[in-house]
Amino acid sequence: MTALSPLAPQSYPDLPEIEGVRFAAGEAGIRYKGRTDVMLALFDKGTEVAGVFTTSKCPSAPVDWCRERLPGGKARALVVNSGNANAFTGKAGARAAKLTAAIAAKATGAPQAEIFLASTGVIGEPLDGSKFDGPLQKLAAKAKPGEMFEAAKAIMTTDTYPKVATVGVEIDGVPVTLSGMAKGAGMIAPDMATMLSFVFTDAPIAAPVLQALLSKSVQGSFNAITVDSDTSTSDTLLLFATGAARKRGAPEITAANDRRLAPFKVALDVLLLDLAHQVVKDGEGARKFVEITVVGAASNAAAKRIALSIANSPLVKTAIAGEDANWGRIVMAVGKSGERADRDLLAIWFGEIRVANKGQRDPRYDEAEVSELMKKPKIDIYVEIGLGNGQATVWTCDLTKEYVEINGDYRS
Amino acid sequence: MTALSPLAPQSYPDLPEIEGVRFAAGEAGIRYKGRTDVMLALFDKGTEVAGVFTTSKCPSAPVDWCRERLPGGKARALVVNSGNANAFTGKAGARAAKLTAAIAAKATGAPQAEIFLASTGVIGEPLDGSKFDGPLQKLAAKAKPGEMFEAAKAIMTTDTYPKVATVGVEIDGVPVTLSGMAKGAGMIAPDMATMLSFVFTDAPIAAPVLQALLSKSVQGSFNAITVDSDTSTSDTLLLFATGAARKRGAPEITAANDRRLAPFKVALDVLLLDLAHQVVKDGEGARKFVEITVVGAASNAAAKRIALSIANSPLVKTAIAGEDANWGRIVMAVGKSGERADRDLLAIWFGEIRVANKGQRDPRYDEAEVSELMKKPKIDIYVEIGLGNGQATVWTCDLTKEYVEINGDYRS
Repeated sequence: MTALSPLAPQSYPDLPEIEGVRFAAGEAGIRYKGRTDVMLALFDKGTEVAGVFTTSKCPSAPVDWCRERLPGGKARALVVNSGNANAFTGKAGARAAKLTAAIAAKATGAPQAEIFLASTGVIGEPLDGSKFDGPLQKLAAKAKPGEMFEAAKAIMTTDTYPKVATVGVEIDGVPVTLSGMAKGAGMIAPDMATMLSFVFTDAPIAAPVLQALLSKSVQGSFNAITVDSDTSTSDTLLLFATGAARKRGAPEITAANDRRLAPFKVALDVLLLDLAHQVVKDGEGARKFVEITVVGAASNAAAKRIALSIANSPLVKTAIAGEDANWGRIVMAVGKSGERADRDLLAIWFGEIRVANKGQRDPRYDEAEVSELMKKPKIDIYVEIGLGNGQATVWTCDLTKEYVEINGDYRS
Repeated sequence: MTALSPLAPQSYPDLPEIEGVRFAAGEAGIRYKGRTDVMLALFDKGTEVAGVFTTSKCPSAPVDWCRERLPGGKARALVVNSGNANAFTGKAGARAAKLTAAIAAKATGAPQAEIFLASTGVIGEPLDGSKFDGPLQKLAAKAKPGEMFEAAKAIMTTDTYPKVATVGVEIDGVPVTLSGMAKGAGMIAPDMATMLSFVFTDAPIAAPVLQALLSKSVQGSFNAITVDSDTSTSDTLLLFATGAARKRGAPEITAANDRRLAPFKVALDVLLLDLAHQVVKDGEGARKFVEITVVGAASNAAAKRIALSIANSPLVKTAIAGEDANWGRIVMAVGKSGERADRDLLAIWFGEIRVANKGQRDPRYDEAEVSELMKKPKIDIYVEIGLGNGQATVWTCDLTKEYVEINGDYRS
């Protein structure tokens, strides 16, 4: 087990119970010894679901499984295991997913069409679905609303801490809760979703509305983070709405443009961004949390591509690890992004300090002052392209020797 | 100074003198102490030149300078310094380039329009062009045909060894020589050229023909290597043809489709590939030289994008550093490339050993045998996509802790 990330949260929030969801975590012995590696979430009848998945052309069997069931919009159970991603496991992988769902269906009484699956861990190893026979029955029997934190721990792989967040918000004056969990530390360059994240609410929101909210909110959160530019085969983000708040007077929301949804949309953005930041802060070997804002690009999309070019540059990331304000490498990364940029208009800031302006080093900046700033755990990089109104912010971490160490013998 | 790369050549070739070119190396005191940091190449009148440059949107001042002069097609001198890239130095950078050329023109008697410049090193620091006043006069006075190896040493930055290669070939029965040098160890993901490479020949070939040969040959050599996916602002590859072999009866070549050029084309391909491989083998922190071949893709371009997605994946590169045949990460990299791929058709080999086939682990492969193979300094990865006839080969190196170390304090 790797040491706790220095960027880990100081404390974890108390997670309020969400009516209509129960959790349990247990040991299926997939790969790890002496820790939980499977979690079950049970949903009351009528729970609506939305999801986004990896854009990988070689998605995992559980991603295929979820994609096929998502159009139904209904969920009764979620089974997630760590230790084995059930990815690139061919027909045997699809069979393992089906067997897992069948065991879960029997254990929970839910129809297979409403069971969602996710797996995370090593790619390419066959997953023995029969290992869930026994554990899942036990979990179904003991699942409780208060066990979400234990569930978040069971889905960890190289994560050094569990990632949870919760937000309270009102819909038409009725308080509802939005809580989520995530896992991920490497192979993080989500493109539609992160490795694994699950969000739960008691708000009564129909699946198509949930899907619209989720697809939008993910763009500025999980789709704006990167640890190592590597996109997982297993990225899955699911949002479940039990609708239990209906009993307390919350209105049924069936249209994405319903004005009563405005605070909930903000709450979802806040929650997903919180979880996404936690993923980056647990980036393998990370010591610095880096926020990169690009303004003045030709378009928002151009700004995001430039920001990700900076965020994914090994030379920028190693310089930050070395606490070196090497803005020349930021110029390089802007230049290689393929987006329009004019050297003579470019300006770069570290925190509040402008280090480069109009195509050259800013003569007024004090290297000692910038060096002091680079020692902090949070580094803010701000780049002004000077061509248009496009802007974007992305988040990443530094690239350290520990990243190489962790990934040099992950399988061994 | 970093220790010599374990992939360094066992010995250096004897570089035959190329009639019409003289070299000299010296100390201008740009940044390094106790080593040469400037080289001058002098060409006889009538020397033709071709070049390719970085696709960066923020190119260095010397790249701008060369691009403006290249259409003339004539070269009399080349000045290259290490220690400072004269990139992102604004109008002062352009003035420094102009001053360097003016000093070189005065020292050599060549017209400024026929002087080519290149700089490599730190980005964003002002370059003091006046430092060449004195050194360049001395170099012009002492330049000799036999000093090419010394010139190759003067252009090194984080390189651990000088990179030179030479090939003899005939044009219409007349022997000509093709020799080149290169530098580069990090910020290597050339897209039209490598960081810096200069090739010289005594063949009488007109500039437009040289340009056609160079633009084609670079695709399978310098444009097929990557160390860290970072494209330099300074990438420059220049090919100079003195034409001195004309005196020995070599025909004047003025058309790219001249059949007498066939062996020369092959020789150029061999030479550029040799230099490109030397750059990868000196990749910062590299211990493994990795050849990645992708076949059966939808097109050659698709195959190259997939191969580069594998070659640039930090997770693939760290696994190779850890001598781990983690083919799951190759699946991941194929999946994230954005190119068409079908998991159930994919097959992957390490060397001669097929580790994955038809969407799953090859049941016949022996992990111990593959582990033995991963200990070698050269790793061959072969990926069959199974969809079409597109193929490509690219070369890269592993990603080690030393890469992080070297780049964590390059400026300090």
